[in-house]
Amino acid sequence: MSLNALFLNGSLKTSEEPSNTEGLMDEVIKHFDREGIKSECIRLADYTIKYGISDDLGDGDKWPLILEKIKKADILIIGTPIWIGEKSSITTLAMERIYGGSSLTNEKGQCIYYNKVAGVVVTGNEDGAKHAASSILYGLTHSGFVIPPNVDTYWVGEAGPGASYIEAEGYKNNFTIQHAKTMAYNLIHFAKLLKENPIPAEGNLIET
Amino acid sequence: MSLNALFLNGSLKTSEEPSNTEGLMDEVIKHFDREGIKSECIRLADYTIKYGISDDLGDGDKWPLILEKIKKADILIIGTPIWIGEKSSITTLAMERIYGGSSLTNEKGQCIYYNKVAGVVVTGNEDGAKHAASSILYGLTHSGFVIPPNVDTYWVGEAGPGASYIEAEGYKNNFTIQHAKTMAYNLIHFAKLLKENPIPAEGNLIET
Amino acid sequence: MSLNALFLNGSLKTSEEPSNTEGLMDEVIKHFDREGIKSECIRLADYTIKYGISDDLGDGDKWPLILEKIKKADILIIGTPIWIGEKSSITTLAMERIYGGSSLTNEKGQCIYYNKVAGVVVTGNEDGAKHAASSILYGLTHSGFVIPPNVDTYWVGEAGPGASYIEAEGYKNNFTIQHAKTMAYNLIHFAKLLKENPIPAEGNLIET
Amino acid sequence: MSLNALFLNGSLKTSEEPSNTEGLMDEVIKHFDREGIKSECIRLADYTIKYGISDDLGDGDKWPLILEKIKKADILIIGTPIWIGEKSSITTLAMERIYGGSSLTNEKGQCIYYNKVAGVVVTGNEDGAKHAASSILYGLTHSGFVIPPNVDTYWVGEAGPGASYIEAEGYKNNFTIQHAKTMAYNLIHFAKLLKENPIPAEGNLIET
Repeated sequence: MSLNALFLNGSLKTSEEPSNTEGLMDEVIKHFDREGIKSECIRLADYTIKYGISDDLGDGDKWPLILEKIKKADILIIGTPIWIGEKSSITTLAMERIYGGSSLTNEKGQCIYYNKVAGVVVTGNEDGAKHAASSILYGLTHSGFVIPPNVDTYWVGEAGPGASYIEAEGYKNNFTIQHAKTMAYNLIHFAKLLKENPIPAEGNLIET
Repeated sequence: MSLNALFLNGSLKTSEEPSNTEGLMDEVIKHFDREGIKSECIRLADYTIKYGISDDLGDGDKWPLILEKIKKADILIIGTPIWIGEKSSITTLAMERIYGGSSLTNEKGQCIYYNKVAGVVVTGNEDGAKHAASSILYGLTHSGFVIPPNVDTYWVGEAGPGASYIEAEGYKNNFTIQHAKTMAYNLIHFAKLLKENPIPAEGNLIET
Repeated sequence: MSLNALFLNGSLKTSEEPSNTEGLMDEVIKHFDREGIKSECIRLADYTIKYGISDDLGDGDKWPLILEKIKKADILIIGTPIWIGEKSSITTLAMERIYGGSSLTNEKGQCIYYNKVAGVVVTGNEDGAKHAASSILYGLTHSGFVIPPNVDTYWVGEAGPGASYIEAEGYKNNFTIQHAKTMAYNLIHFAKLLKENPIPAEGNLIET
Repeated sequence: MSLNALFLNGSLKTSEEPSNTEGLMDEVIKHFDREGIKSECIRLADYTIKYGISDDLGDGDKWPLILEKIKKADILIIGTPIWIGEKSSITTLAMERIYGGSSLTNEKGQCIYYNKVAGVVVTGNEDGAKHAASSILYGLTHSGFVIPPNVDTYWVGEAGPGASYIEAEGYKNNFTIQHAKTMAYNLIHFAKLLKENPIPAEGNLIET
């Protein structure tokens, strides 16, 4: 069975600069590679994404390109840095745009995000990972994605300013690395399960 | 296939008084009844539940009785009223106690909550339902439950003091009632799916 | 005493379109007008605001213009619509940029936002106002602003899709209008108090 | 000028056991002692506090004793441990009870919490301090307290299980200790300011 994973990185920096969140995403990708899952990473800051609740805002809006990739993916992973204890602004923008497509339907009349599984990766230098994860996972389940157990992985350092994931060698943190593994496997288990057993079209059609 | 649903109601009132949250839970139960799912409701305020992060705190702690019911359930639904825009204190206590059992393992070495699906019901007179739902669903997925799409149902009235769900006849709100239906069906779909296809014990064992 | 109030509106729409959040901001402004407080409103979506944690990101970044206005203001009010139960992406961006200036100091060596008071206005059609207010007020106090009592005003309708503030005639909601008044007066009281009694430079200097 | 500070500790443990949150509260108290502010600490778990939104629930409810202390205090500090990235259940209960008294009025007809300042202390072993602080500070300002700038102090360790504040010697963390100092001084500055300049009774009376 061929499965595709899409990673959306909500770093405030474009891909010209290294991203700590990408560093932790790579730990999840290692497991996907081993299991034959194809991964693609998108740095959201590289794209012109317009403000508004719609699947296509026109006038140079590049979100439709990303939405096409989401439609083709079996697994969606949102990655975000933390600012003021929360997910980033550009991650918030991506969540709004995902939500803006949640009234689109598949051939059965269900939301287009049905049968897709989702998870979250968070990095920061001090605090706020669970808050960011909670917000993102809620937005995803509310928009139609399936949330398997334990699909949030994060790294933060001790209270206060300090080194972030890459510089702090967060990959040496057993808790973080173990969670990246559990996350990867539970996403794979559920993506396979749903590929073979799509959600029945009963009680969950979008009325138009 | 025989499935059991357990509803934990975090109202601040004991079952001697009517509960708005129970009123909305009943809408979910109607669908469960129709589909042959057995439902049991527990008013948390009726029990002596001690403070602490453990599955059994002894000394009159009644949480172990509730934990036994959770272990036997295929579907867990947390219901909560809203105070200051958040889930109630007794719901918070239940979440802590659920989390306190998340290191217990099933026969495969996975968390005991694996293969169980969970959802949330929220009622308030004005605002805070999504915040409460987000917090509860995160705590549940973080503790090992599966979150199908669109398993949060709620009712709130317009900004400011006013009638709550029962008095306001919230059951006449199409949005709320439609969500109760979608929630019920997606919980059933996933409970059946996991009964027949339990999560593989790969990459998700609790190390001891 | 001459006082200036600055309103930052985080609507996803530019000022070519009407804003419900502006509608409720106007209720606060009425009180400011009556008390001789000068108000200025900025629609954030009209400006090119770059992503990043800094007071000036260059290359066409218009945030420095807004930061200059914040520096001159005695009262700052953040307004936001609600999406997925939270503040908007552009409001999140403004909070990041405000935080990005919080290490700048006044002539005493305190944060530049000291002696300024702040409040929040939220509108949505269904739910999430307190969550948005909580996040914004925390970001503001964490960045150095003073939060007087009861400085959040909001309007939301009943659960589910429906008319927003303007169309729903939210100005007829006594709760919302009373809170707009309390907010306005408590912001004025504290702005005057701090103008005459600036925060002593003891225990709160930013070490460089 | 004589000022009183009241610390409410929402640890899940009674005072028979040491509390990490108390450990960090002690850092704030050191500054209060030096400045002649009288401090009293209450471990909430030592008291029978009933569930409900009221100032006195009778039948053995000990909250009225605590409410009397709040009424006499000039400074209120809420301390909480973190569970699942949030404030504790017993802290949530205290916030509900504080809110339950917010319709009581002082001799001017304002909320009884007016002219009181509040802050927050959070400790955990990994993550969630800002989320807990945000929730508590919002509940306090919404209930009528004044929030001076930078009145949240916290300590958390690196992601994952590990030593808590006392064992980890969190008092050696410069960021945490500096914030405890800023918090203490800004609480004192505003408590003094409000003692001499109470909030004018204009625009903020509770209508009955």
